[in-house]
Amino acid sequence: MIGRICSKRFCRTYNHSLNKDTIPLPIIRSEYAVRGAIAEKAMKMQRQMEDGVKFPFDKITQLNIGNPQNLGQKPISFNREVLASCLIDDTERSRKIFSSDAVDRAEYYLSNLTNRAAGAYSDSTGIRLIMREVKSFIEKRDGVEVNEDQVYLTNGASEGITLMLKLLINDLNDGIMIPIPQYPIYSALITRFNGTQVPYYLDESKGWGMSFEELERSYAEATDKGINVRSMVVINPGNPTGQVLTQEDLNRVIQFAHDKQIFLLADEVYQRNIYVDKEFCSVRKALKELGSPYDDDVELASFHSLSKGLHGECGLRGGFMELHNINDFANAMMYKSKAVALCSNIIGQIGVGLMVNPPTKDTVSKEVFDLYQTQEQEIFNGLKYRANLITEKLNSIEGITCNEVEGAMYAFPQIRLPQSYCDLAHQEGLSPDLKYCLEILSKTGIMIVPGSGFGQEEGTYHFRITNLVNSKSEMTKALDKIGDFTSELMSVHK
Amino acid sequence: MIGRICSKRFCRTYNHSLNKDTIPLPIIRSEYAVRGAIAEKAMKMQRQMEDGVKFPFDKITQLNIGNPQNLGQKPISFNREVLASCLIDDTERSRKIFSSDAVDRAEYYLSNLTNRAAGAYSDSTGIRLIMREVKSFIEKRDGVEVNEDQVYLTNGASEGITLMLKLLINDLNDGIMIPIPQYPIYSALITRFNGTQVPYYLDESKGWGMSFEELERSYAEATDKGINVRSMVVINPGNPTGQVLTQEDLNRVIQFAHDKQIFLLADEVYQRNIYVDKEFCSVRKALKELGSPYDDDVELASFHSLSKGLHGECGLRGGFMELHNINDFANAMMYKSKAVALCSNIIGQIGVGLMVNPPTKDTVSKEVFDLYQTQEQEIFNGLKYRANLITEKLNSIEGITCNEVEGAMYAFPQIRLPQSYCDLAHQEGLSPDLKYCLEILSKTGIMIVPGSGFGQEEGTYHFRITNLVNSKSEMTKALDKIGDFTSELMSVHK
Repeated sequence: MIGRICSKRFCRTYNHSLNKDTIPLPIIRSEYAVRGAIAEKAMKMQRQMEDGVKFPFDKITQLNIGNPQNLGQKPISFNREVLASCLIDDTERSRKIFSSDAVDRAEYYLSNLTNRAAGAYSDSTGIRLIMREVKSFIEKRDGVEVNEDQVYLTNGASEGITLMLKLLINDLNDGIMIPIPQYPIYSALITRFNGTQVPYYLDESKGWGMSFEELERSYAEATDKGINVRSMVVINPGNPTGQVLTQEDLNRVIQFAHDKQIFLLADEVYQRNIYVDKEFCSVRKALKELGSPYDDDVELASFHSLSKGLHGECGLRGGFMELHNINDFANAMMYKSKAVALCSNIIGQIGVGLMVNPPTKDTVSKEVFDLYQTQEQEIFNGLKYRANLITEKLNSIEGITCNEVEGAMYAFPQIRLPQSYCDLAHQEGLSPDLKYCLEILSKTGIMIVPGSGFGQEEGTYHFRITNLVNSKSEMTKALDKIGDFTSELMSVHK
Repeated sequence: MIGRICSKRFCRTYNHSLNKDTIPLPIIRSEYAVRGAIAEKAMKMQRQMEDGVKFPFDKITQLNIGNPQNLGQKPISFNREVLASCLIDDTERSRKIFSSDAVDRAEYYLSNLTNRAAGAYSDSTGIRLIMREVKSFIEKRDGVEVNEDQVYLTNGASEGITLMLKLLINDLNDGIMIPIPQYPIYSALITRFNGTQVPYYLDESKGWGMSFEELERSYAEATDKGINVRSMVVINPGNPTGQVLTQEDLNRVIQFAHDKQIFLLADEVYQRNIYVDKEFCSVRKALKELGSPYDDDVELASFHSLSKGLHGECGLRGGFMELHNINDFANAMMYKSKAVALCSNIIGQIGVGLMVNPPTKDTVSKEVFDLYQTQEQEIFNGLKYRANLITEKLNSIEGITCNEVEGAMYAFPQIRLPQSYCDLAHQEGLSPDLKYCLEILSKTGIMIVPGSGFGQEEGTYHFRITNLVNSKSEMTKALDKIGDFTSELMSVHK
């Protein structure tokens, strides 16, 4: 590869060490759609806007990513007061502007840290006190017993997922079963770690339900090719599909995993984001209630995050991973892997503590508790309202059909793009759904992600949209703009 | 591998998916000494102490890791006030207990964020405003021009190092030159990514200086074996060795890298930790002043961190990486790699802004500025005093010699362990320096790390100790305890 010197006085060559031929192929091949072509184009437009270039809209609306506070959701006051108090470490000053309950809670954390130092590295797995809060949370939620040495505090759920996949993948022979459509961190990391994606399709015609024939088909197809299926990912509630699995569904997943002796990865970051009359059941709980031999055997890693749920504290990068039925050797390898990055950030760790051990009637004043509840309820109501609004609005657009958004923060509607539009896209070297999303971005400033980034059955087109604009009227306006654009497209390409 | 079920009613086998035979060998092989055997033993002792077991000391002293606030260093008030204000996002309330300057600075950051949301994900590379603060910092420090699109805000320096090594290593044929002794994140990650360590030895007899004959020897030995040397790591000031490189040293490193067309990794996290009459010179600056063709050609990644310097904010996990002479393709691959973890934590990012763009006489009130300066100076004086104290004290112990600690936060003394002690260690299956450090831990509660974790010339033994106990008398006491233990060892094994 020729160096950049050619533009200078003498043209000579210098071989850049990092180039197309030397960067590992798995990195070149991996794709991460939610931060891919759409995000890139939007970033360019953003800079052009800052430089005074005019667009037919006055701002870019990020409906491409689950980032609630970016769209106006406010943080929970109690949590922020605790975190700020931890940073200040001056009880007297903190009491002047924060509730005593928040200051007391900060004191609970600080007094447990060596030299009260929130600015120190913790142990690699996290602050022990908070690992124990996570332990209690899971025990209470699922009626199980948790080994605190198998709890890891992470920078968001992403870090835990990364660590687990790295441990599970040796090479292309190792396959990981992922739902299609899926959250693209899985496909990106499996490709980056040079493993093989083993897709199992969710059934769009049954509300993105899981089919157990499909699991068997997927597994058989992979093993027929000589792939060693190591693990299966379950995202519940689903991302990007929003469906909520029943305990029966989970039982069958567990039986499948047990039968094949594969490791289960349970992505449960949307466990509080359920908008229909269904209850969240963790894989851990389903295992417990299914009992022996499943609960003694099936290896499981469950992920949770501060970024989702009702608090939406994406920027704090807090999360946890809990391992179950992992043997000591594997746990020691996980510990070692985690240790290289020293520890996850302490503010995020304390955030996790606040998420899993929230203030209750009995632990804080009525005033503090009421405010906490009101804030959470308001956020939940907004999410639920907009989840319904999306389904309703999208289904009223010609050419679009959308399953009910039962949970999570997304809809994944199907759009039946006319053949002539698809032909045009292919001529431009674009997948039709990418072209559709790029054009919506150009014309409306709305960022949505093409279905190809998540995976979809061949010949079908989708996009992912979040329910996160923190205003009913703005959400309505955004959906109307997508509707207008689509109607025009349909009439032009009829 | 047999499941854990054998302890239960029926003994049957279940193959755990994750076990010694299936976990990738590179992970099993990788070692990370600063969180290895010593940390593990200390953690056990800590829990025993909590359970009431008596030891001949009342606490464990962590001199094993650069974690200043864990040992009593206090954070800089201005920084914490800004960070807390960002979390609170209530200017009026913040003004009641924080300096106006801190609140204004928080306002500067918040007003730049969409919806003022410190709780939102930023762009993958970081908050643009802070990336620009980093750009200005480097430009001012080095007299260069920085492309802000090649600045990455990271969770500590570790994340940047991880991302770069991943990009540089395909397989065992790819070699990375690392100093010996080195900071073990390099050896751990090179092993984990299945690359090859290419050691170049620092010269202990010349104050851990760099020898350019040694660089050539190291490179030749690797290429003779068919290794493709891709990159070279420079740690300046040195970790664990504390030496400060001169600009001339760096010039020769640069010429070497240019000659071999290899990528330079400059670990400069201790750039403010210099206790002798030498000035820090970055590789970027040396490149610039060396001029063409070097400054046009040599690919460079420089790392800096919030964890070290004078602020020691390890727990915030903030850092940055700047790339120079990287081509657009490689930068796009880096961007993609970084994007999977979404973004580094926002509080850490703002911390980086505060580090690179500190308050000045002209931007804040005299009172705020004076306090800031006083706090920094006090920290610096303590670090310097203890760096000197360590050299002096250790050199007075029979059997130990220690080079002057010019910079960073560590000494790396050599200990001449008697043959009979070494024999004993080998009988126990331990390296002699590990045995020495384990025994010091058992007898005194002091954690230091054996030299074998950092690399040392065969037949020599060292340990790494930090200068971070935030009290002169405690630091003295700790050194005295090490002295007493060593003297006894020497007399027993004479």
